[in-house]
Amino acid sequence: MKPVNPASTIRILGIDTALRTTGYGLIDANGSRLRAVDAGVIRTTAKFPFSECLRRLVGGVRELVKLHAPDVVAIEGAFYCRNVRTSMVLGAARGAVIATVAELDLPMYEYAPRRVKQAVCGYGNASKPQVALLVAQILAISVANLGDDSTDALALAICHAHALQARGGLDLPAPL
Amino acid sequence: MKPVNPASTIRILGIDTALRTTGYGLIDANGSRLRAVDAGVIRTTAKFPFSECLRRLVGGVRELVKLHAPDVVAIEGAFYCRNVRTSMVLGAARGAVIATVAELDLPMYEYAPRRVKQAVCGYGNASKPQVALLVAQILAISVANLGDDSTDALALAICHAHALQARGGLDLPAPL
Repeated sequence: MKPVNPASTIRILGIDTALRTTGYGLIDANGSRLRAVDAGVIRTTAKFPFSECLRRLVGGVRELVKLHAPDVVAIEGAFYCRNVRTSMVLGAARGAVIATVAELDLPMYEYAPRRVKQAVCGYGNASKPQVALLVAQILAISVANLGDDSTDALALAICHAHALQARGGLDLPAPL
Repeated sequence: MKPVNPASTIRILGIDTALRTTGYGLIDANGSRLRAVDAGVIRTTAKFPFSECLRRLVGGVRELVKLHAPDVVAIEGAFYCRNVRTSMVLGAARGAVIATVAELDLPMYEYAPRRVKQAVCGYGNASKPQVALLVAQILAISVANLGDDSTDALALAICHAHALQARGGLDLPAPL
């Protein structure tokens, strides 16, 4: 595990995991100064078998880590799903990503959607457009061309940056 | 993907995935002749963080594949879980294993528990001791020292061998 030193610049990779469209967002955090590095999505299609979708998803994550060398990864925490079938599929995508990040020796933190909205917008029930607006403001970028998944991934990265910064890191959760 | 040729010996790795105790069972199948090669469990403990458990699980699978060079992997199909939390965790373990096997370019098949019991015992509601008895009989081994997880993994491998053999492979499901 690379040491996380809040005094220097930390590159945070936020991943909003799903089977079909996984959003990612990279930011550099230096104290309270945040800079957007990259954002996008890893897509898979229903044309491919399930195993091939998972292989492409983790292949995408490996490429991102190789290309951008993040110091830490923030992913969305487990949350309530309507049905067991959906949660098995979503769980599989998350598990594949978590195992891959762990094999790459990167520390990983998870944040519940409410906490991400709280960190970015100041309240946990913020709407998607409100999150997008604040992500754009905080990073001083236009998110007009970013999909919800990439915006959510940037929000995850911002949430981790806040946790590192606020109260000397006291709010930082245990690594995943 | 290695070609699967039913005429020669095929090495089948059955994996009964879970977060804590993942059973595995390897058999060589040559037509209807089946031979047990290895069986055991990959264990993780609650002492470790979730990501480390998944890393150890997929590390174990990688080692097994390196050591035994199976031609194909059979895993337990998605099934009903009482609660969403459990299915997220089980889904994560399955997803991590499926992505790893896919990265190793091995073909993979999944079988529902009922189908495994049907293949091994002749009826889908067989009890654990009945499955163990038949696994022992089919492979001509003692399963007295094998846990349920290893026995279930051997049963998965036997189920795939039967699907390869029966009706010229017509019962073989689509690869996962």
